[in-house]
Amino acid sequence: MGPHPAVADVRRAVRLSLADLAARAKPDAGPGPLVLVACSGGADSLALAAATGFAAPRLGLRAGLLTVDHRLQEGSAGRARDVVRLAPALGLGPAEALTVTVGTAGGPEAAARDARYAALSAAADRLGAAAVLLGHTLDDQAETVLLRLARGSGSRSLSGMAEVSGIYRRPLLWLGRERTRQACAALGLRPWDDPHNDDRVYRRVRVRHDVLPVLEDALGPGIAEALARTARLCRDDADALDGWAAEVHARSRGPAGELRVPDLADMPAAVRRRVIRRAAVEAGAHASALAAVHIEAVDRLVTGWHGQKGVDLPGGVVVVRRCGTLVFAVDNVSLA
Amino acid sequence: MGPHPAVADVRRAVRLSLADLAARAKPDAGPGPLVLVACSGGADSLALAAATGFAAPRLGLRAGLLTVDHRLQEGSAGRARDVVRLAPALGLGPAEALTVTVGTAGGPEAAARDARYAALSAAADRLGAAAVLLGHTLDDQAETVLLRLARGSGSRSLSGMAEVSGIYRRPLLWLGRERTRQACAALGLRPWDDPHNDDRVYRRVRVRHDVLPVLEDALGPGIAEALARTARLCRDDADALDGWAAEVHARSRGPAGELRVPDLADMPAAVRRRVIRRAAVEAGAHASALAAVHIEAVDRLVTGWHGQKGVDLPGGVVVVRRCGTLVFAVDNVSLA
Repeated sequence: MGPHPAVADVRRAVRLSLADLAARAKPDAGPGPLVLVACSGGADSLALAAATGFAAPRLGLRAGLLTVDHRLQEGSAGRARDVVRLAPALGLGPAEALTVTVGTAGGPEAAARDARYAALSAAADRLGAAAVLLGHTLDDQAETVLLRLARGSGSRSLSGMAEVSGIYRRPLLWLGRERTRQACAALGLRPWDDPHNDDRVYRRVRVRHDVLPVLEDALGPGIAEALARTARLCRDDADALDGWAAEVHARSRGPAGELRVPDLADMPAAVRRRVIRRAAVEAGAHASALAAVHIEAVDRLVTGWHGQKGVDLPGGVVVVRRCGTLVFAVDNVSLA
Repeated sequence: MGPHPAVADVRRAVRLSLADLAARAKPDAGPGPLVLVACSGGADSLALAAATGFAAPRLGLRAGLLTVDHRLQEGSAGRARDVVRLAPALGLGPAEALTVTVGTAGGPEAAARDARYAALSAAADRLGAAAVLLGHTLDDQAETVLLRLARGSGSRSLSGMAEVSGIYRRPLLWLGRERTRQACAALGLRPWDDPHNDDRVYRRVRVRHDVLPVLEDALGPGIAEALARTARLCRDDADALDGWAAEVHARSRGPAGELRVPDLADMPAAVRRRVIRRAAVEAGAHASALAAVHIEAVDRLVTGWHGQKGVDLPGGVVVVRRCGTLVFAVDNVSLA
C-alpha cells in the first residue's frame, strides 16, 4: 500500500523542487549537498519537513531543519525546542532553533520577516546548505497576490513569491494548504496552530478569512489557483521586461549615469519607465519610496517635453532634462 | 459661480479625451468631427452625455447620442425613447435609439455586449462619427480587473478596458461612479437605475456589491484606484511584450508558418509563449479556446525536448517538432 495521496503529493512536490540538486549528488563521493527545511511547526512547514526527511536521502541529499524563535509569543522558546526534538523522527539532522530579535522597521509583519530571513540565511551559510526550503503554499501565494493588488503597482508586484529565490525554494507553491493538513493527519503529526493566523489585526489574515471566501463565492471555485497562475505569468512578464530594460539602460546611459532621450523616446512605455526607474535607483533614489507618480513625472520629461522644471525623487535625487539627456543628480546645488 | 465640482470633473475628463479631435477641428472649415455618446440613461453615461453636449461644441466638435434598446426588459423601448428625447436639452444631435436582438452565444452578458457594440459600430459608421464615447468608470474598471483575475490568464487579461480602442473612447475611466451620480444630481438629471445592476445572478454585480466592499475593508480604502492603476500598468506591459513577440515571430517564422526553434530557445518565457500563441492562431487554432496549458505543452517542444509527440490545439491544429522547427499543421493527416 502506497502513502496517503496527500503525503504522496507533498513528497512529489519536494522531489521536483530538489531535482537539480539530486542530479549534482554523486553516490560514491561522500555525503551529498545539504538542504534545510525552515519549519515553524505549522501544518505547511511540518508536512514539508516530513516529506523532505523522506525524499532527500533517496535523492542522495542530506536534510536538516531550522526553526525560528521570534520571541513574540509566550512559550515560543518551548515550541521551537519541540520542533527541533521532532527532527530526528522525521529523518532530519542537523536541527537548530534560531533565536531572533524582531525590530519595528516597516511594521510588525515586515520586521518579523526580515529577522527571520536574516537568521535563516546566516544559518544556511554557516552549515554550508545548498538550499533552504520554505513551506509557502498556493493559498499563501493567492493571499500575496491580493495583498499586492492593493498597491496598484504592476506585474512585478503581482508576481508574488518566487519558486526559487537565491538559496530559498518553495516546493509547495502549487499545492493547497488543505493538502498539507491532510498530509500531517495521515502521518500522525500534530501541527501547531499559530494564533496569529486568526488575528484580524493582520491584513493577510483578513484576506485569508474574509476576502478569499467572498471572491470564491462571487467568481466560482478555483480562485486561489487562478491567482497563483496570475502570479506566475506576471513574474515571467516582469522578468522579460526587466531584462529588456537592463539592455536599453546599458545602451542609453552616458558616462555620468545620464540617459540619452532619443534612445528612450521610441521605446514602449513599459520599458521606458523601467529604464527611468533603474537610472533613478542607480543615482541614489530610494527604491521602496519611488512611486508610479514619480516615474511618470520623469517620463513626461521625455514624452511631454515643454521646458518643464526638474522632478524631485525620494532620496534627494532630482532629474532635469538638459541637452537631450535626462540628468540624475543628488541635489539641486550640483546642478547650479 | 462655476459648475458643481463633479460636473467640472466629468467635463474635464471629456475635454481631455477629445483633445486630439479638437485639434483636428478647423473653426472656419464648416462643421467639425462628430462624436457620439452611447447612453443607457444610467448615471455614468447620462453624466457623460451632459458633459459632452457641453464640452464638444466648445472644442469645435459636433456631438450626438446613441442609445441601445436590448429588448430584454419590459419598457425598454419607452426608456430608449426617453433617452433620445432628452438629447436636445443636453445639446446633443443627432440622437437615435438602436434596437438590437440579443443572441445567446457566450452567455447573456457577452451576447448583450456583442449585440450592443455591433449596433453602435454600424451607427457610427453610417453617421460618419470620429468617436463613440462610453461611460465606463473607474469602478467598472476595478470590477473588470477582478473578474479577469479569476481567469488566471496574465497581464493582457488584467489590463481591463482600454481608454481608446478603435472608434471607442472611455473618458471616465479614471473617475469614480459616485462622481457621475453627483454630476447628474447637480444638473437635475434623473438617471435610470437598471435593475440588472442589483441582480446577483451576474458575476459583475456580485463583484460590485460583495467583493469590492470586503476588499476595501480588508486592505484599506483606494482599492478601486489601485485596481485601475494595475490595469493601466498591465496594459503597458502587455503592449510592450506583444510588440516584442510580433518582431520575434516575424524573424523566426519560416515560409509555411513554422517556427525555427533556435530563434525561440534564447527568448524569455514571456516572449516565447506569445510567439507560440501567435503562430498557433495564424495556423487556425481558436484564440479564445487556447489556454495556458496548450501553450506550455508546445513550449516544452522547445525547452524540454525529448522526442515527445505532437501537441493538439483547439481548432484542429497540431504542433510537431521536426528538423529544428515547430510545424503547425491543420490536422494529423497532412503530417503523415
